[in-house]
Amino acid sequence: MEQVIQHPIYEVIFSRRDVRRFLPRPIPEEVLQRILTAAHHAPSVGFMQPWNFIVIRDTGVKGEIKGLFQRENAKAAQVFRGKRRRLYDRLKLEGIEEAPVNLCITCDPKRFGPHVLGRHTIRRTDLYSTCCAIQNLWLAARAEGLGVGWVSILSNDRLKKILRIPRGILPVAYLCIGYPIEFLPQPELQEVGWASRLELDDLIFADRWGVKQGKG
Amino acid sequence: MEQVIQHPIYEVIFSRRDVRRFLPRPIPEEVLQRILTAAHHAPSVGFMQPWNFIVIRDTGVKGEIKGLFQRENAKAAQVFRGKRRRLYDRLKLEGIEEAPVNLCITCDPKRFGPHVLGRHTIRRTDLYSTCCAIQNLWLAARAEGLGVGWVSILSNDRLKKILRIPRGILPVAYLCIGYPIEFLPQPELQEVGWASRLELDDLIFADRWGVKQGKG
Repeated sequence: MEQVIQHPIYEVIFSRRDVRRFLPRPIPEEVLQRILTAAHHAPSVGFMQPWNFIVIRDTGVKGEIKGLFQRENAKAAQVFRGKRRRLYDRLKLEGIEEAPVNLCITCDPKRFGPHVLGRHTIRRTDLYSTCCAIQNLWLAARAEGLGVGWVSILSNDRLKKILRIPRGILPVAYLCIGYPIEFLPQPELQEVGWASRLELDDLIFADRWGVKQGKG
Repeated sequence: MEQVIQHPIYEVIFSRRDVRRFLPRPIPEEVLQRILTAAHHAPSVGFMQPWNFIVIRDTGVKGEIKGLFQRENAKAAQVFRGKRRRLYDRLKLEGIEEAPVNLCITCDPKRFGPHVLGRHTIRRTDLYSTCCAIQNLWLAARAEGLGVGWVSILSNDRLKKILRIPRGILPVAYLCIGYPIEFLPQPELQEVGWASRLELDDLIFADRWGVKQGKG
């Protein structure tokens, strides 16, 4: 078979990680602008562009978010028992204070009014668009040598109060961004034995759910 | 200022489009595998990998989905009036039958049981993960010269019946994939004057919602 020269995007996709350990090195303003521009060029339903970006550098704000994480994580940890709990407690699940920049990406479901093209039947396509923007940013950051970590163990209501996000706007992602100490060769949860990557082939069906494609 | 050599991912991100017009040229199996592998390497909450991929080539299935689109689109069109309605009616919002491959990407909220690391407080992070996979695939496809179009004017309930998707599994995206007639220089909705790209700077806040960063 002919040797296929793959596009550099694959290396970016395969080497992207959820990063929790950051160097103190600051992010140059033009690099930050580039990754935000990448996010802003995501697809969006009806070209709605429902996102906003709150760039957080203030140590006071970071400290409040860190406190919120600690309270929520104490609750989240309780569902795990025994060995699993001991492993959980050793995991580092945020890098809020170490990362030079934290970024909250929000979704405004009312942008451009009630009638957005393509959003008539599936309303939460606004959220889907926002997630596409997040992934654009994550990949652009990786290409720039920046690590990104998504902190999902937060209460949205309290996060909104800290960041003064108005009623009706939804925080979708709270990200920590900075130059990482390292990019692990595989996801950390796989490295520590928490979970493994599924076989792609098992996840693919042909024409209808549950139907496997004939090999040949 | 020093000339910055930007990573090729930016060109992919900026030239990605929501494509509706496809050539009949088939997609080589290894190319399809590569873009599915890109999707499968998306980040996911607790390494949950909640996605499945239904690859649709059957013309009968495509025809059923096309019929579903037509019924839903007739309803969706009614919210627009006058000039806006005439413009809406001229837009092509799907390429279901022309695209050699349709792809339904689903989310299984119960994969790995009730306790997924990092999903304790914000339950729909499973959907967010699935959207990251969609954007990975979209960008990899663009790098391969493939166009992708997201068809959001569908009823999920009826889509599930056609594709025999079990109760509890959510279809997140229905995509048409193939080699495009062209990649437009800007989004089609901008080209035809339906909507414009917002100013990125207007969407960025510093530390808290509504606070603009001092320029310096």
